[in-house]
Amino acid sequence: MTDVRIEKDLLGAKEVPKAAYYGIQTLRAVENFPITGIPPHVEMIRALAAVKKAAAIANMEVGVLKREIGEAITQASDEILAGHLHDQFIVDSIQGGAGTSMNMNANEVIANRAIEFLGGERGHYMQCSPNTHVNMAQSTNDVFPTAIRIASLNLAKGVIEQLELLHQAFSLKAVEFDQVIKMGRTHLQDAVPIRMGQEFEAYARVIGRDVQRVKRSLDNLREINMGATAVGTGLNADPRYIVKVTEHLRVITGLDLQRAEHLVDATQNTDAYTEVSGALKICAVNLSKICNDLRLMASGPRTGLGELELPPRQPGSSIMPGKVNPVMAEVVNQVAFQIIGNDHTISLASEAGQLELNVMEPVLVFNLLQSLSILQNALQVFRKFLVEGLKANVERCQELVEKSVGIVTAINPHVGYETATSIAKEAIQTGRSVRDICTERGVLTPEELDVILNPFEMTSPGISGAKLLFGE
Amino acid sequence: MTDVRIEKDLLGAKEVPKAAYYGIQTLRAVENFPITGIPPHVEMIRALAAVKKAAAIANMEVGVLKREIGEAITQASDEILAGHLHDQFIVDSIQGGAGTSMNMNANEVIANRAIEFLGGERGHYMQCSPNTHVNMAQSTNDVFPTAIRIASLNLAKGVIEQLELLHQAFSLKAVEFDQVIKMGRTHLQDAVPIRMGQEFEAYARVIGRDVQRVKRSLDNLREINMGATAVGTGLNADPRYIVKVTEHLRVITGLDLQRAEHLVDATQNTDAYTEVSGALKICAVNLSKICNDLRLMASGPRTGLGELELPPRQPGSSIMPGKVNPVMAEVVNQVAFQIIGNDHTISLASEAGQLELNVMEPVLVFNLLQSLSILQNALQVFRKFLVEGLKANVERCQELVEKSVGIVTAINPHVGYETATSIAKEAIQTGRSVRDICTERGVLTPEELDVILNPFEMTSPGISGAKLLFGE
Amino acid sequence: MTDVRIEKDLLGAKEVPKAAYYGIQTLRAVENFPITGIPPHVEMIRALAAVKKAAAIANMEVGVLKREIGEAITQASDEILAGHLHDQFIVDSIQGGAGTSMNMNANEVIANRAIEFLGGERGHYMQCSPNTHVNMAQSTNDVFPTAIRIASLNLAKGVIEQLELLHQAFSLKAVEFDQVIKMGRTHLQDAVPIRMGQEFEAYARVIGRDVQRVKRSLDNLREINMGATAVGTGLNADPRYIVKVTEHLRVITGLDLQRAEHLVDATQNTDAYTEVSGALKICAVNLSKICNDLRLMASGPRTGLGELELPPRQPGSSIMPGKVNPVMAEVVNQVAFQIIGNDHTISLASEAGQLELNVMEPVLVFNLLQSLSILQNALQVFRKFLVEGLKANVERCQELVEKSVGIVTAINPHVGYETATSIAKEAIQTGRSVRDICTERGVLTPEELDVILNPFEMTSPGISGAKLLFGE
Amino acid sequence: MTDVRIEKDLLGAKEVPKAAYYGIQTLRAVENFPITGIPPHVEMIRALAAVKKAAAIANMEVGVLKREIGEAITQASDEILAGHLHDQFIVDSIQGGAGTSMNMNANEVIANRAIEFLGGERGHYMQCSPNTHVNMAQSTNDVFPTAIRIASLNLAKGVIEQLELLHQAFSLKAVEFDQVIKMGRTHLQDAVPIRMGQEFEAYARVIGRDVQRVKRSLDNLREINMGATAVGTGLNADPRYIVKVTEHLRVITGLDLQRAEHLVDATQNTDAYTEVSGALKICAVNLSKICNDLRLMASGPRTGLGELELPPRQPGSSIMPGKVNPVMAEVVNQVAFQIIGNDHTISLASEAGQLELNVMEPVLVFNLLQSLSILQNALQVFRKFLVEGLKANVERCQELVEKSVGIVTAINPHVGYETATSIAKEAIQTGRSVRDICTERGVLTPEELDVILNPFEMTSPGISGAKLLFGE
Repeated sequence: MTDVRIEKDLLGAKEVPKAAYYGIQTLRAVENFPITGIPPHVEMIRALAAVKKAAAIANMEVGVLKREIGEAITQASDEILAGHLHDQFIVDSIQGGAGTSMNMNANEVIANRAIEFLGGERGHYMQCSPNTHVNMAQSTNDVFPTAIRIASLNLAKGVIEQLELLHQAFSLKAVEFDQVIKMGRTHLQDAVPIRMGQEFEAYARVIGRDVQRVKRSLDNLREINMGATAVGTGLNADPRYIVKVTEHLRVITGLDLQRAEHLVDATQNTDAYTEVSGALKICAVNLSKICNDLRLMASGPRTGLGELELPPRQPGSSIMPGKVNPVMAEVVNQVAFQIIGNDHTISLASEAGQLELNVMEPVLVFNLLQSLSILQNALQVFRKFLVEGLKANVERCQELVEKSVGIVTAINPHVGYETATSIAKEAIQTGRSVRDICTERGVLTPEELDVILNPFEMTSPGISGAKLLFGE
Repeated sequence: MTDVRIEKDLLGAKEVPKAAYYGIQTLRAVENFPITGIPPHVEMIRALAAVKKAAAIANMEVGVLKREIGEAITQASDEILAGHLHDQFIVDSIQGGAGTSMNMNANEVIANRAIEFLGGERGHYMQCSPNTHVNMAQSTNDVFPTAIRIASLNLAKGVIEQLELLHQAFSLKAVEFDQVIKMGRTHLQDAVPIRMGQEFEAYARVIGRDVQRVKRSLDNLREINMGATAVGTGLNADPRYIVKVTEHLRVITGLDLQRAEHLVDATQNTDAYTEVSGALKICAVNLSKICNDLRLMASGPRTGLGELELPPRQPGSSIMPGKVNPVMAEVVNQVAFQIIGNDHTISLASEAGQLELNVMEPVLVFNLLQSLSILQNALQVFRKFLVEGLKANVERCQELVEKSVGIVTAINPHVGYETATSIAKEAIQTGRSVRDICTERGVLTPEELDVILNPFEMTSPGISGAKLLFGE
Repeated sequence: MTDVRIEKDLLGAKEVPKAAYYGIQTLRAVENFPITGIPPHVEMIRALAAVKKAAAIANMEVGVLKREIGEAITQASDEILAGHLHDQFIVDSIQGGAGTSMNMNANEVIANRAIEFLGGERGHYMQCSPNTHVNMAQSTNDVFPTAIRIASLNLAKGVIEQLELLHQAFSLKAVEFDQVIKMGRTHLQDAVPIRMGQEFEAYARVIGRDVQRVKRSLDNLREINMGATAVGTGLNADPRYIVKVTEHLRVITGLDLQRAEHLVDATQNTDAYTEVSGALKICAVNLSKICNDLRLMASGPRTGLGELELPPRQPGSSIMPGKVNPVMAEVVNQVAFQIIGNDHTISLASEAGQLELNVMEPVLVFNLLQSLSILQNALQVFRKFLVEGLKANVERCQELVEKSVGIVTAINPHVGYETATSIAKEAIQTGRSVRDICTERGVLTPEELDVILNPFEMTSPGISGAKLLFGE
Repeated sequence: MTDVRIEKDLLGAKEVPKAAYYGIQTLRAVENFPITGIPPHVEMIRALAAVKKAAAIANMEVGVLKREIGEAITQASDEILAGHLHDQFIVDSIQGGAGTSMNMNANEVIANRAIEFLGGERGHYMQCSPNTHVNMAQSTNDVFPTAIRIASLNLAKGVIEQLELLHQAFSLKAVEFDQVIKMGRTHLQDAVPIRMGQEFEAYARVIGRDVQRVKRSLDNLREINMGATAVGTGLNADPRYIVKVTEHLRVITGLDLQRAEHLVDATQNTDAYTEVSGALKICAVNLSKICNDLRLMASGPRTGLGELELPPRQPGSSIMPGKVNPVMAEVVNQVAFQIIGNDHTISLASEAGQLELNVMEPVLVFNLLQSLSILQNALQVFRKFLVEGLKANVERCQELVEKSVGIVTAINPHVGYETATSIAKEAIQTGRSVRDICTERGVLTPEELDVILNPFEMTSPGISGAKLLFGE
């Protein structure tokens, strides 16, 4: 007894493992594309099942698909949506053919499972054909982009949720650190005092804008092109079907999907994806900058800035005892670099579209879904394992402010930029304090200096010691 | 008689050409940064003048700047706004110091011109000091970002205008080409018929989304951080001044500028710039894809696709007589590549911000303003010299449809995917037409084929010859 | 009976599955870095085992590691080299900590396996400690870079082999197509005749240069920094050990590894990786250009250029019967885009090194090894499934040459550029042949034209019909 | 009297300023490409002149160009080589047409100047035609790539020279700082002692590898394709001319140019440029890392690491008196970002080549020459104004080492990793020194600690205090 079955297609016959739900076209793709070894993203598999289910229902309603067959397709799709049969999706994430192999993989798995429901045997496609029935009124060129959009929207929800939580976490830290006075630095050089809460509020706010940017970037993504078929003209797709399939997809996915106004446009253009990736890239850049700051402020424990303490998460070194490293920030930096690189790949793929189709969509979606996944994952652990546990080293911050020269800026309005420069120069060269030099030179009295050089005063808009200048 | 004057600063004395309006700090920057040889963008120079004028007025109103000096500063700034003294802005576009040299260049030029108005001699800064008076209540760290935003917003207007005109031009072509039936291609392989108008409508629509994307990307750009001074805390800036300076800048520039809600955030974060650049990059990717398509469809004249005729703009070859090349599309491709590369530089610069400031802003703004300028320039000539003059080669398009095999897709619903595949295979191998083979095999009658294989029918949603299947 | 054991480290105690060979630090890393879900590359796991084996032997020889323990470590490492225990390497590819978690994962797995060989129980690290024994005289900061280099060199061998095979395949096609005359195109516009063999020789040659570039890029990669320990100073590493460990690694890996001349340099700098990635990127750019060409020349079958026939590999469409797409070229384009994007990530990671170490190495190596793997994979199927089966459509090529206008270039030297231009112009506008117009105008005789317009003649250097001009 | 002359080409007639040396095709290009406003790089103008001169001489020698005309062309080219007439090169750096406009600009300027030498009037092209004579046996498609290569090689010389000088400067600093003991840092966390000289030697070495990489990247660049004409087949180019023109170019330029082995290859492929840009990019990444380090080590003066002192170059702030910023490092960071972005543009342009030609060469060369220029410029000022003047803050470095915990690593071999961890933990938590805790716990005697904790000892390979462990 053989453990294979024979299947045929345009190019001839081929043995398929009897136990397999996938068929000949999936197998050809496996042979053709042994590239990354990484199967399609689970959200992509689920999205394809959702599309197939919606199409089957719409085709039944329009009357072009027999109810019996349609219901078997629906049932098979539901199984995949519930997490079953995912091991049958075996084509590589990077593949030629604009996603045809991924679509045919879905068509074949669903057809064979449907055949079982219909009482038949896998491979007997007369009962339910991958092309004629499962793919009815569809083309890879509408199925695949639609699935990309569904998968991306589902993953984006998690990204937004995590970004919002991070935003909140930074805001809470801004409140917690509001009274922590520390030295502000520009060019990594001592500048003027700032409150640590102000710094964290700045982090909160840029992440808040990232939430808005990512959200807005999803608007165009919600427009799906089901009914476009091969090139967007809708050939072989009943107009009633086009309306219905989108409506069913809205219900099945729970997503606010819209039928694209112009299906030719929606089939060939991939700007909706570059737009999402672009928003993620900006977020990645911002996160990387924040992580650089956190690592810098937490540098030490003895020979760095030492202003922040990060929660220890793991021994930092295989050789240096007691070392603890900012690993949660470092992993976010790296995720950021990955997302920025992915955005590059996505742009290249998008630019390579030609005429009615972008055949580079597989690598595009591979990178887009990876970016969404790893960003969500990284944000969660970054917040939980780093941000929420951050502590300010208040004494260290205070100490640095007190010995800094940058506070000399506050005396500018009182003595002029040139005199202030001369005082600053002397302070730096001699190591003496600004206060001492001012007093010695007699340019300001100790009482005046008490008012002017109050660092807290310096962290809000206004001329420090303005009353001395202008009276009440 | 010497032709130099001596100026002094923190680091010592230096000779400055007597005729120069710039001063010692500008000269130091010129020595330090002989990098690109490209001076600041004219819009940047104008924006700096606008900032200085607004600050002078606000400082006068608040009462910290003497009216006489303030008015001289205003007058000098007005001259720069009117296009004068631009040759005095001589620091390189790529410079260290977060824009301090560009700000000081402006401060020095304005101070020296103001001194002249005050009856003094250039270099006599007691009358009007670059730091104490022109830069009063300001820091490079609020002046420079504010100027970047003003300059970018001004240039963005032209970009949006040109994108809107291009959108219209493509829409008009979509109407003009609405009845031009041609072969749709996916994977560069014959697919199914499409109307050329549908293709151009797709171009119009993606550009239409670019208009929206670029517009939306300007929202955050409108938030300026005047009053932030050194690190965003507003040290040395009177709170009344902060309100007034923004208001005056709105009037002077005519732009809908807003005071940033949180000045520390607005001083250190550069996401507003990456956001604009990101929108431009997506647009560049889309334009490049469109230009690739146009060049492909216009390939020929004899040995290419030959579906489109581009207006000839210049002899194409120094050696091949009669050759005309798609130069206007090629230049847009190249501008797109430049913008994509610039976006990369901008992201790198943005990520390199540290703590209270991003010192990499000069290279960031250099690239951002270049992207805005060259996009506007390229869009204009692309539309005028290429898009508006495009002609469809109607006969050629028709001829290609007629000899194609792809129309076999339309018989799918009538004969099934498997039979259709067999017919297609025979057609490709023998060179015979789909119609002939169908008739010969007797699968469809000539009358049925007339209905089903009507290419125009195929370009709208629906099953071609649906009535044959379902009756009325 | 419990199925966990308790392990302790700097941060406290933690339950570890009793069956696990990994230990507490691995588990912490798993909790901290749930990012990509992708475990370390198999070549990386093997490389780590090679390093541990070499270090154990060297430490035994130097006399700092007891022979009994050292041999157990060696034996455990050998198992991993032989492909066992790979499922115990469970830390994520993207991780904070500069690879410490990956190193500790190896240390723990080897220690526990060694303990078994020593008759002990997993977790009883007194017998063999992950840090004290397995990691003896090592730091992540020398182990990890060394492992990256070994893994990369091993994968690079396959890349070079495949590139050489591709080079040969193109060379063979160049011979096969040597007499296929076809139209050369510049700007996608008809230029002058060329032989298809010349085109394929150009492909062969650029790939030939890629072979050289990739080979040369490995030179610096061969310098390993074993003995550097924490920062490159070699603290805790016996000088004799440093010499021996490298020697043993050469033997174990069979690679021509060299001890880096300066260990501080080799520990902090990552230019050897960017160099390899850079060479891969250039190769990717070249491959993408070639694939674009192949897809263009194979466009059709009826409405494209139709000069090349690609071997069919799978049905091209789920809806369009008979369609065959250039999927093998498309997948190479996508692999190229991935490699280019990865190079970007690698550059970002490299730039982010700070002082004595580059903590971003995990994301760097993740991308580098992926680039090497997918390039090798893609090259193999590209050659076997596409290049080797390419066929020229000789008649179609011939036909296009005959109807082209570009051959007018050959009459330049005989009639001057201006007259040639006028003839070309008339030919294009009227659709008539260059030959006819020349004859009609009487500028050249039919006999002269036979000589001058011979397309084969035009494909070698020289003035076509030079004898007519200069005599013998 | 009119100040224009009328010129004609394929597309019709056009007015050209009478005073202009350029002609109608240049003017068309100016109208078509008002993109960047930046004219061709001066090295590009000179390179074009060199090509035209070499071609004229070769054509004279072969006997196809009249000596009188040829000598006039040579003379005109010499003027351009000497720096004259550069203001006549007015086409934009970014242009469609693969450089045809730049080539024709050169052809027209040289023709008109040659006509003057021949006693004629500008525009009277019968005497010397831009196409027939100046461009004889040439095409843009061999002239332009050849000129790119010459210009790049000339600029690369300066880059290599500056890199070598920087390498030397770092080496000298390595010697100067050889005895400066300081804390090594990994993950920005205290690691183990290192000598500052070791750090600078690491910088020297990576720059040394950059010298080698840049040099090697020029090998392929030396292969020029003169004689290729339109598509590399050499149509219209006498074989003797091909040999001679290359030889003359070698003499004229003084560069070691080679005739490309295969002219079709050399005409369509642009990997020689991406190779150079790739080498520059790696160098940029390395420089940026070094500058980040320098800025970090020089952070302060009071609240940063303070280990390095940079020479002050300009007042750092328009508001903060006495502030001095690391502007020379910052400008190098920015130049690095520009070069990395340019490399991206160059890769995009390279990938976009199609069939026999890469029409995107103008944007490619624009970026390549800019990268070469700004790198050379930045390297020079970086070395002179920063590196050569660097000073170590020896006391500060020493002080940080003394209070650090990282030295605990040296006791590992003496007490085991676990005990060392416990000591380190206590030291960090209590702020006490490692030495005190060791003594108190009695794990090592003060005498042993004197030997083991000697920081200088720790900066060379070996177990600190090895004699205590092993005896002599």
